[in-house]
Amino acid sequence: MSARSSVEEHASFVRSLLSGLGARPTERVAVADALGRITASPVESPIALPPFRNSQMDGFAVRASDVASATDAPVTLPVAGEVAAAPGLPAALAPGTAVRIMTGAQVPEGADAVVPVEETEAAGADGGAVRILVARAAGDYVREAGSDLAAGDDVLPPGVKLGSRHLAAAAASGLTGLLVRERVRVAVVSTGSELVEPGAELGPGEIPDANGVALAAAVRAAGALVVREARVRDDVDRLRAELDAAREAGAELVLTSGGISKGAYEVVRELLEPLGAWVGAVAMQPGGPQAAAAYRGMPVIGFPGNPVSAQLSFELFVAPTLRAIAGRPAASVVPLPLAEPLVSVAGRRQFLRGRRDEHGRAEVVGGPGSHLVAALAASDLLIVVPEDVTELAAGEVVQTIAL
Amino acid sequence: MSARSSVEEHASFVRSLLSGLGARPTERVAVADALGRITASPVESPIALPPFRNSQMDGFAVRASDVASATDAPVTLPVAGEVAAAPGLPAALAPGTAVRIMTGAQVPEGADAVVPVEETEAAGADGGAVRILVARAAGDYVREAGSDLAAGDDVLPPGVKLGSRHLAAAAASGLTGLLVRERVRVAVVSTGSELVEPGAELGPGEIPDANGVALAAAVRAAGALVVREARVRDDVDRLRAELDAAREAGAELVLTSGGISKGAYEVVRELLEPLGAWVGAVAMQPGGPQAAAAYRGMPVIGFPGNPVSAQLSFELFVAPTLRAIAGRPAASVVPLPLAEPLVSVAGRRQFLRGRRDEHGRAEVVGGPGSHLVAALAASDLLIVVPEDVTELAAGEVVQTIAL
Repeated sequence: MSARSSVEEHASFVRSLLSGLGARPTERVAVADALGRITASPVESPIALPPFRNSQMDGFAVRASDVASATDAPVTLPVAGEVAAAPGLPAALAPGTAVRIMTGAQVPEGADAVVPVEETEAAGADGGAVRILVARAAGDYVREAGSDLAAGDDVLPPGVKLGSRHLAAAAASGLTGLLVRERVRVAVVSTGSELVEPGAELGPGEIPDANGVALAAAVRAAGALVVREARVRDDVDRLRAELDAAREAGAELVLTSGGISKGAYEVVRELLEPLGAWVGAVAMQPGGPQAAAAYRGMPVIGFPGNPVSAQLSFELFVAPTLRAIAGRPAASVVPLPLAEPLVSVAGRRQFLRGRRDEHGRAEVVGGPGSHLVAALAASDLLIVVPEDVTELAAGEVVQTIAL
Repeated sequence: MSARSSVEEHASFVRSLLSGLGARPTERVAVADALGRITASPVESPIALPPFRNSQMDGFAVRASDVASATDAPVTLPVAGEVAAAPGLPAALAPGTAVRIMTGAQVPEGADAVVPVEETEAAGADGGAVRILVARAAGDYVREAGSDLAAGDDVLPPGVKLGSRHLAAAAASGLTGLLVRERVRVAVVSTGSELVEPGAELGPGEIPDANGVALAAAVRAAGALVVREARVRDDVDRLRAELDAAREAGAELVLTSGGISKGAYEVVRELLEPLGAWVGAVAMQPGGPQAAAAYRGMPVIGFPGNPVSAQLSFELFVAPTLRAIAGRPAASVVPLPLAEPLVSVAGRRQFLRGRRDEHGRAEVVGGPGSHLVAALAASDLLIVVPEDVTELAAGEVVQTIAL
């Protein structure tokens, strides 16, 4: 790659470094914890669904042949008992009798139809008999065992992103665990001697480390798992030790911030460039400096230290891969008319922070400065200005990326 | 309300019971745990952003007046030192000198512009001087302290659903905690003597409780918090004790499944109807039986016991309110042509499980039976057939609700 690469070139390079993440290891998780995860294999139901023949209505279980004439003239049957949706085996139904039955209760042996209570009248002393007003055919209002699924059938295919309705099917099948794809294990490393823990008293020249918490949150929002979060000062040995520790912790990907521009004390560049990393400029603003490497086989993607640049870089270069692996939708790109005219720098793709105004137009929030983190927070989209465009009039349509 | 109410009537009744949930209590959470939560008040930055005047580029900090003629003829200045992005206060810049400066490093007192390294050449022995090739005005490549935000300014407004970019702004402001709206606290109660823990050996007449895990997952997916999950057999005293325990646990809403149809052993009906609950039929299929009550001031919404009916009922009657409170998007309703003709029952709104086929048409999955939980899992939408429609031809457009 050349010293200054295009957004597409860098995106493609990062994508190739991350291509190994697609083949996911699997893990078993409790059904109750599986919301949003993705099934790793077909899920078999160990039982039939429903597990036994049961009534679809409150009513009377009968032999259809005993009530075949009921529509012409009511048929009165003695009520031999009652079956609730409860454990235990109901007694078989004797010919010429009915049993009161509840929704979901087992249909007794011998019965082959259920007459809904609305199609009956009480009869006899103390409701000891029932008058059947409507003939019902064999099978009416009876849910056969296995009519949803036979034991051993697949209740879920592989590759399903689990919502509550999938967990309902798994739990109804008596399953307690599901084999799902592991989330991608990511480490986040902030570099810079000027960084302190947010909330700590700031000395001269010190700033709170925003990238640690914000990149970790961005990783989680993209459906991956943060296995380690660290902050290292500008010291190559410490950074090396941290990358080794991340690898030890099972990280499959490390995201660094800072340490990749052209000055001195560029710790990510110093450590990784001799190992073959690409550290250079991408024709974009903000976020020009970028780095990408494999460290002992583990991809390390280096973002600039500025939080706005780091968030944008994550969104452009890493989030698409993580979201695809986690089964999450890609960021939507929406064409919108500009609320105001704007100027841009030739030769760089500009990503301006913006929001949709009340007229559905894209307006710029806070100008192009990459340090405007409060402005980023006030944005809900990025306005994309292509490399060869230096001026746009109000009303011209631009592509916007939803945040 | 009448004995059989419309979908809209019941939805509106449930909404009114849940209206008290909108006024949320607040809680303080760590910034690192605040992803997806909603700010409860304006968030002030205790510090200016950026906290100190710093360089936007790697280059040389100078007095603009010293380099005013550089574009006409290069100006050579002795390099008095170097400032990195690191703790400590840099020495003031003496007139007629330059200091090497890194991106993000403090601009020394006396300097008012930064000349990017690309616009300079090394000069003198050992780079002891620098040749400035381009004039730079005061302020060029200097980020003033507070240019993003002054100390005490709001970094986030109230009502923001926190994404990683908002957490970046909060952490950059040195904040460690954020005041957010509490999630709605929900208890989930499965009723039915036939229910056993999923995974337990099934005796005759027993089925795994699917609603516990699935309604809890649906609650979480709607952005609320499950504070208690229980299963009770058909015993009014046990259900009463469970509702009291849920209230004790701080539940603001209880969702029950089962126990509301017209048979005997309808435990939810038996407990709540004497206390003024509405328990009746809604003109819909599946999910006809429904209940809604306030128990000691706490809303209790009762769904049918069948998992398909329970999931659908949650989606129609409770999810919209919970999603709105949690700042999550409503389910999208999309008109689609039908893949095949279908027939429906007059007088009930039918919600058929379906999916979008490869031609973008809605096809029915698994028929109208409310017990078809595997079919629900295979669906990605609900096909809505209005009450007064009994037949639809292939190609006719229906409303579908995305799952």
